[in-house]
Amino acid sequence: MKNILDYETVALVDDDDAIEIIDQTLLPGKTEIIRLHTGKEIWDAIYLLQVRGAPAIGVTAGFGIYLLMKHSVAADFEEFMKELREKSDYLNSSRPTAVNLSWALKRMESHVTEFYQENFGFADAALAAAGSFAEVREKLISEMRAESERIKAEDVEVCRKIGEYGVELIGDGDGILTHCNAGQLATCKYGTATSPMYLAHEKGYKIKVYCDETRPLLQGARLTAYELHSAGIDTTLLCDNMSASLMKTGAINAIFVGCDRVAANGDAANKIGTSVVATVAKRYNVPFYVCAPTSTIDINTPTGDDINIEQRKPEEVTEMWYKERMAPEGVKVYNPAFDVTDNELIAGIVTEYGVLRAPYDKAIKELFEKYKK
Amino acid sequence: MKNILDYETVALVDDDDAIEIIDQTLLPGKTEIIRLHTGKEIWDAIYLLQVRGAPAIGVTAGFGIYLLMKHSVAADFEEFMKELREKSDYLNSSRPTAVNLSWALKRMESHVTEFYQENFGFADAALAAAGSFAEVREKLISEMRAESERIKAEDVEVCRKIGEYGVELIGDGDGILTHCNAGQLATCKYGTATSPMYLAHEKGYKIKVYCDETRPLLQGARLTAYELHSAGIDTTLLCDNMSASLMKTGAINAIFVGCDRVAANGDAANKIGTSVVATVAKRYNVPFYVCAPTSTIDINTPTGDDINIEQRKPEEVTEMWYKERMAPEGVKVYNPAFDVTDNELIAGIVTEYGVLRAPYDKAIKELFEKYKK
Repeated sequence: MKNILDYETVALVDDDDAIEIIDQTLLPGKTEIIRLHTGKEIWDAIYLLQVRGAPAIGVTAGFGIYLLMKHSVAADFEEFMKELREKSDYLNSSRPTAVNLSWALKRMESHVTEFYQENFGFADAALAAAGSFAEVREKLISEMRAESERIKAEDVEVCRKIGEYGVELIGDGDGILTHCNAGQLATCKYGTATSPMYLAHEKGYKIKVYCDETRPLLQGARLTAYELHSAGIDTTLLCDNMSASLMKTGAINAIFVGCDRVAANGDAANKIGTSVVATVAKRYNVPFYVCAPTSTIDINTPTGDDINIEQRKPEEVTEMWYKERMAPEGVKVYNPAFDVTDNELIAGIVTEYGVLRAPYDKAIKELFEKYKK
Repeated sequence: MKNILDYETVALVDDDDAIEIIDQTLLPGKTEIIRLHTGKEIWDAIYLLQVRGAPAIGVTAGFGIYLLMKHSVAADFEEFMKELREKSDYLNSSRPTAVNLSWALKRMESHVTEFYQENFGFADAALAAAGSFAEVREKLISEMRAESERIKAEDVEVCRKIGEYGVELIGDGDGILTHCNAGQLATCKYGTATSPMYLAHEKGYKIKVYCDETRPLLQGARLTAYELHSAGIDTTLLCDNMSASLMKTGAINAIFVGCDRVAANGDAANKIGTSVVATVAKRYNVPFYVCAPTSTIDINTPTGDDINIEQRKPEEVTEMWYKERMAPEGVKVYNPAFDVTDNELIAGIVTEYGVLRAPYDKAIKELFEKYKK
């Protein structure tokens, strides 16, 4: 097994017109790096979860739309944008509910539009100076490349910063618990919840990380345990129902999890089971930290009650992963994708700007006033 | 699917020299009734978990040793007992750590010894009246049959009583959560945790039962969901990490679980994950009940800290049930079989003599003084 930190989850290989990814559907059994060249290959990779995790999907989409436009022969800007939007729509259809996918594609489109308008849109002279649209097109494509790399660089920077603030909450020798995969495999580097762990490991801290397997899709067993173990971190897997037994022994000093959305009052939606861990942590006085890039904080969602929780298909619980059906036919299944952890169970929200503490409504408001105007 | 309540988990079929069981290794896919005739078949059934659950194993052992002695040709009492002990040792080796197995076999042996001593041991006249040992042997074997049926009848009675006291804690329309399988399949009839549910259903209450799947061995999905659904109860399966999400919605009015051992202060050891459910229940003010035949209350164990928790093999978490290994090689695994639920999280302990309430040390002491002297 190679160290996950020696790879990037998503990388642009420009001279091969390709995106390089780790095929996550083969993990943990096999670490295979694959290159995506065609639109169909990129679409499939997102659809089939060969690349997954909101930030990693966004970066893949950015690189993807750049590569699909790289050899455009559009005759004018209008045609160029029409082609770009068609290809964006195609990529966006691979996982229609993935917010980062449409966000990245829109950002690419807006950037091209703004760049064109600034440099050519209102200046006939500039267009004339550029000679023909072929040269303009060249510049637009070059800008797309730069913007897609910026999306990635920002992701890496945000994750690194979360790690730097988060590692201050960890001591040498600590036991740390995490749930699901908010790891490097969900981002481009470091991950969110795992970033403090990788940085603690870099500092030479002897930490022990415990990974909830995270039913029904087992991201903790398949992905988090894999990536931490590959990086040389002392990693222990447990079932989701074992955390109380473990915390009672005093083995856990802190818990770090990722999140899908944080409401304006600090309530945090994350993978199903997160709020169980937080409830148990409260009983055993273990601090429970949510690692959240500010992009996941939604000040327009007042509380966790306003977050809609998706119910997923029963087969994930009754047969997925198994040799045979493990529950009787006809039985109902409760299978929510996420749960909401109440803000009172959260010891801190680790962002790229620092660690927010309760009262979260005030802390979040202040952070947005300072950095997000 | 046939109604589980139309079967008994373990039944003696005397005219066929057989024990009839439901082969639990084929559940939930297939309901197959099998008959065990030979010692090897009985041994295998216990070893392979075709029959499981402490009470059901005890009853199987009782019937088993009776059947194995039924055609004994021992020439005298000494030879009879030697044969009985050898066959007991053999059956006992099928699951050496199962307390009810050795308990039932010892009870059978003691009963034969006492019966012999009372009727023949101190009375030459009685022996002479019996004519030959063949007639004595006949009587001993007949007593073994009666005793093995008593073990079963007591189990059914205890479970029924737990149901009668437990059903008083349930209202029409209630949502009920349970963990693991403390069901009819673990006993001879009704189960412990499920007994109040079956009796509520008998009364015509429209209850909804939610079953934790119970990783790693999935007894909740494979067995509890199966048996409740077969009995016509509205049954919903969920993963072990979904209970907080569910209780937050108000869907759960009460929780019933079984137990492996209750300490003198009311701390209760049960299947791993039970204390997670209890912790979450406390947060959402859902009453958490432990169903415990008094045979599982151990007044010689002062608190839960004195209960030794067995660690089981990692493969149960990393590969059992799966098509392929679902965690990376080399990763450690935390896999305790049980956890201890602190008495302060327990709203009541439902026994065959009534519902015990806190303070449990006092309630348990009083119960033992009254019924268990």
